[in-house]
Amino acid sequence: MPEHRVTFQPEGISVVVETGTTLLEAAQQAGIVLNSVCGGKGTCNKCLVEIAGVAEPQRACQYCVENELTVTVPDSSRFFEQVILEEGTSHKSLLDPPVQKFFLELEQTSLEDLRSDAIRFIEALNAQAGKIEEATEQVWEGTAHKGWVLDKSVLGSLPKVLRDNQFAVTAVCHEKRVIALESGDTTKEKYGLAVDIGTTTVVASLINLNDGKTAAVASMSNPQITFGDDVIGRIEFSTQQADGLEQLQKKIIDAINDLIKEATGKAKVDPQRIYEMTAVGNSTMQQLFLGIPVESIAQAPYVSTVSTAVKVPAGRLGIEINPAGNVYVMPTVAGHVGGDTVAVTLATGLGQRKEIDLALDIGTNGELVLGNRERLAACSTAAGPAFEGARIGQGMRGTTGAIERVHIKNDVTVSVIGGGEARGICGSGLIDALAELLKAGIVDSSGRILSGDELPQTVSENLRKRVVTIENQTAFVLAWAADSKNGGDILLTQRDIREAQLAKAAIRAGVIMLLKHLAIEQEDIDRIFLAGAFGNYIRPESARGIGLLPDMPLEKIQFAGNAASAGAKEVLLGCETRRQGEALAGQIEYVELAGRGEFQALFSDCIFFPEE
Amino acid sequence: MPEHRVTFQPEGISVVVETGTTLLEAAQQAGIVLNSVCGGKGTCNKCLVEIAGVAEPQRACQYCVENELTVTVPDSSRFFEQVILEEGTSHKSLLDPPVQKFFLELEQTSLEDLRSDAIRFIEALNAQAGKIEEATEQVWEGTAHKGWVLDKSVLGSLPKVLRDNQFAVTAVCHEKRVIALESGDTTKEKYGLAVDIGTTTVVASLINLNDGKTAAVASMSNPQITFGDDVIGRIEFSTQQADGLEQLQKKIIDAINDLIKEATGKAKVDPQRIYEMTAVGNSTMQQLFLGIPVESIAQAPYVSTVSTAVKVPAGRLGIEINPAGNVYVMPTVAGHVGGDTVAVTLATGLGQRKEIDLALDIGTNGELVLGNRERLAACSTAAGPAFEGARIGQGMRGTTGAIERVHIKNDVTVSVIGGGEARGICGSGLIDALAELLKAGIVDSSGRILSGDELPQTVSENLRKRVVTIENQTAFVLAWAADSKNGGDILLTQRDIREAQLAKAAIRAGVIMLLKHLAIEQEDIDRIFLAGAFGNYIRPESARGIGLLPDMPLEKIQFAGNAASAGAKEVLLGCETRRQGEALAGQIEYVELAGRGEFQALFSDCIFFPEE
Repeated sequence: MPEHRVTFQPEGISVVVETGTTLLEAAQQAGIVLNSVCGGKGTCNKCLVEIAGVAEPQRACQYCVENELTVTVPDSSRFFEQVILEEGTSHKSLLDPPVQKFFLELEQTSLEDLRSDAIRFIEALNAQAGKIEEATEQVWEGTAHKGWVLDKSVLGSLPKVLRDNQFAVTAVCHEKRVIALESGDTTKEKYGLAVDIGTTTVVASLINLNDGKTAAVASMSNPQITFGDDVIGRIEFSTQQADGLEQLQKKIIDAINDLIKEATGKAKVDPQRIYEMTAVGNSTMQQLFLGIPVESIAQAPYVSTVSTAVKVPAGRLGIEINPAGNVYVMPTVAGHVGGDTVAVTLATGLGQRKEIDLALDIGTNGELVLGNRERLAACSTAAGPAFEGARIGQGMRGTTGAIERVHIKNDVTVSVIGGGEARGICGSGLIDALAELLKAGIVDSSGRILSGDELPQTVSENLRKRVVTIENQTAFVLAWAADSKNGGDILLTQRDIREAQLAKAAIRAGVIMLLKHLAIEQEDIDRIFLAGAFGNYIRPESARGIGLLPDMPLEKIQFAGNAASAGAKEVLLGCETRRQGEALAGQIEYVELAGRGEFQALFSDCIFFPEE
Repeated sequence: MPEHRVTFQPEGISVVVETGTTLLEAAQQAGIVLNSVCGGKGTCNKCLVEIAGVAEPQRACQYCVENELTVTVPDSSRFFEQVILEEGTSHKSLLDPPVQKFFLELEQTSLEDLRSDAIRFIEALNAQAGKIEEATEQVWEGTAHKGWVLDKSVLGSLPKVLRDNQFAVTAVCHEKRVIALESGDTTKEKYGLAVDIGTTTVVASLINLNDGKTAAVASMSNPQITFGDDVIGRIEFSTQQADGLEQLQKKIIDAINDLIKEATGKAKVDPQRIYEMTAVGNSTMQQLFLGIPVESIAQAPYVSTVSTAVKVPAGRLGIEINPAGNVYVMPTVAGHVGGDTVAVTLATGLGQRKEIDLALDIGTNGELVLGNRERLAACSTAAGPAFEGARIGQGMRGTTGAIERVHIKNDVTVSVIGGGEARGICGSGLIDALAELLKAGIVDSSGRILSGDELPQTVSENLRKRVVTIENQTAFVLAWAADSKNGGDILLTQRDIREAQLAKAAIRAGVIMLLKHLAIEQEDIDRIFLAGAFGNYIRPESARGIGLLPDMPLEKIQFAGNAASAGAKEVLLGCETRRQGEALAGQIEYVELAGRGEFQALFSDCIFFPEE
């Protein structure tokens, strides 16, 4: 079937979909989660998008892709707005970023008014911004008056900026601290940056703090990958070289600076007008970003150095926004349950409802959060990198050429990312293949690939041909050499299936441990959120089919898109949300799996696939 | 008469005095002010000093210098302790420096105790240091928990320092912020630095914050002098060169770093164990130190950029103490009444008593403070540099070779600093000479040097010979060429006397302006404090004789030594004193003389000398 490229803005993410795919599905594939209050029936009008060249906004659930499209998704159609709206708070009231701007027209100096510049300035600010209670706090740099703090950097520019602008200037305040001073009235230009530091991918969203809208998004691979492609590899590198930590920190700081350049270039925004940045990642990524040693995270009992939120001026980290701007790093739950999990929890609204929700952020580690507003528990399971394509014979990341969908009937049909010939198989393709092979009876519940007479009679000849023996192990041909880029068959081997079993068992056992910890039954789970880049490409019925997810109605399984990024944006926009996140990080009960014998037993049980 | 060198410790200041001078007088000459509750009668035992080679402490007021001596002055014998004690507060209770140290033995990590390092640390600190109320403040760098803040620099070293020391470490706290972390128990090593940044001289005192004692003192000329020898010259330099401000700042930072090296070397203290520095100076010196432009101070209406206290981490200024240590810069009263005046006010106890006191800090500018605990007023008078030896034909600073005392009877006797031949005349010599010439009738109340028949008959032949005419102006020979280093006569010319008249008139008129401002009579003044390096060398009767000081009993005139340094030390040792200083700076009423016509009239009246 013909395929078309669809590009979503402002993220700039492209996906290739078959003719007839709805924009709602295409967006899901791009990791962008739209509202679908009516369940995609076209009645709620909550998923309106703007399509280049089409006059009126269209309902994404009803619009079928027939050609190449560029689609802009307004924030009002995004799922995360709704999660928050559900709780009875309008998005408007949540727009309380820590950065505020005030345009001030000061009285000029005279022999009758000899106040110093600093006092003159603060008194004008105080008159306009509203009086602050006399603060007792002693922790500040610069000077203080009437509860306001003028940062030292502002003091240096104060006399000239005041006099060059006839005493009419804009004060940029971070809560009650004046962090910058600008000529004239610049109150309209107020930006923030939300950064999701993934082990594999870094995503930066440039946000207009005046209206909460996303102005541009930029992303790139985490360049620390050259020092190790997983967390443990990077921790080892940080300890084996004298300046290992510094090198790792420099890589990520440079990467974020590149993303800032790209995003501000796209949106035509002066980086000096960015006054706040939030960063979320796993505990290791966050500490590397801050230049804090990470050794203890890799050694039992796996504690991190800092679990509370960290604030550092951008200039002190070398982040190229306004140097007096603040960088806020999310609080974490434990050594292996980081700020990204807190962000996912915030963005999906876990812990706000009375119903019980489960959020799964599946990567090399699977971070799981379960609970409701009474109690929340989290754990991290070492799923291994099978779902990211590693340790799988012909595995690969979910990029062009990866088999991402597998359908088995009389023969095998695969869908390849970017169309064209297959180069290997990615995580969602692996899960799909396993589910289909189980359904077809080619793999049994122990995970063994059947062959010859063992195969059920219902298995077609075309399929029987695909069961082969290579280097003494059974394998299944997903794509014949003719349809493959590299000229050989694309195989799923018995060993690959074993790896996938370990990964799914780790996650499933983790879920059961959380259920036990909270004394909850599986049936009590109201919703499951699949988060993270990978989570968004899984076909829920396949994940359920192989037992990665509990056996529950599909409508209870929801995609949460890049929920970590969404959480980073929420704490950028709202001080109240930030305090919620800090409270959540302290409240989420951490379930350490390494210390529990019962986890090993559960893990062994979960190796098996569900019986059809 | 034979002369002997007396060296006072820990300041390391030496003076040369005649045989028979008491140690009390010698100390006064060295700018060190001892207690003399009994008025030097030897009954109060408040001026005990330790003399090298002498077993028992001796009363300074009774001990006469007969040979070269090294004398250590304990803090308990110093005047400034007493000023504070008088107010009913013991020195002990004032020892509340902002820096505190706590030795902590943390519980080690285990699978049963997975708290992050930061939480583990803060909870141990909280248990030992006493609970802090949950803080609402948001202004900090690093992380926060239970009201405590861990600075970002501490986070970086936390995991290693904890584990290298079996979790037994010392926390260095600045109020509720942990600024440094040290291995093992270092609570005994806790130092601070009090710096007086004079336009001419910089004095740094290294103070043990555990007992409040001075460990070492170092001083040097302010190297900014190469860019201008007064405030206005330096302000001009700062604006005329693109990097003028940076150059001036670098000079003073480098100078202070040299003094830190010298003082810590003397006292054998690790500069990293200095956690707090206080700096006092006039508004220009303070702003140059902070790198804040000073232009507006030199232009009407002469406002400074910052008048409130400033706090900056040492590392941010390049001050080579513990980089996380805090530098506290005194609040100021106005553009030309700086933190040094606030320090003098604090150190002399002005504003604490019900009696009315006057403090005079005489330099190129004379800063005057008058009042009691009800009201205080201050002004700055442009006395000009005459009392510092400038604009005087043979004037010089008060160093070796300067005539500092003049006695006139049948002939002239002079006392020269360091003994030996005279090279010129310094400020105190100038005042002495004028007072003596007035008394002898050689100069009349208009300031004119009489000659020939105009001279009263009581003037001896020796003195008459000294009245000469040089380059069409009358002059008086203070020292004949035979007693002079440069082989010529040391002269006081008519023009020199006019300069001195301008200087003393400016100060006296300033005092009268303050009296008028507060509606106080001169007779209501209970005490006059003479502060500053120069003030300590003036002979009070001479200052009164020429009308620089009001006509009041000599016992009401007291030397306050380097009161600015003493004030800097007080705010280093006591947070409460710091708050007092901040309150004082806001309460002292500034009297701007430039804006007042009546000042000019008063100034003209004060040009005349008092009639005998």
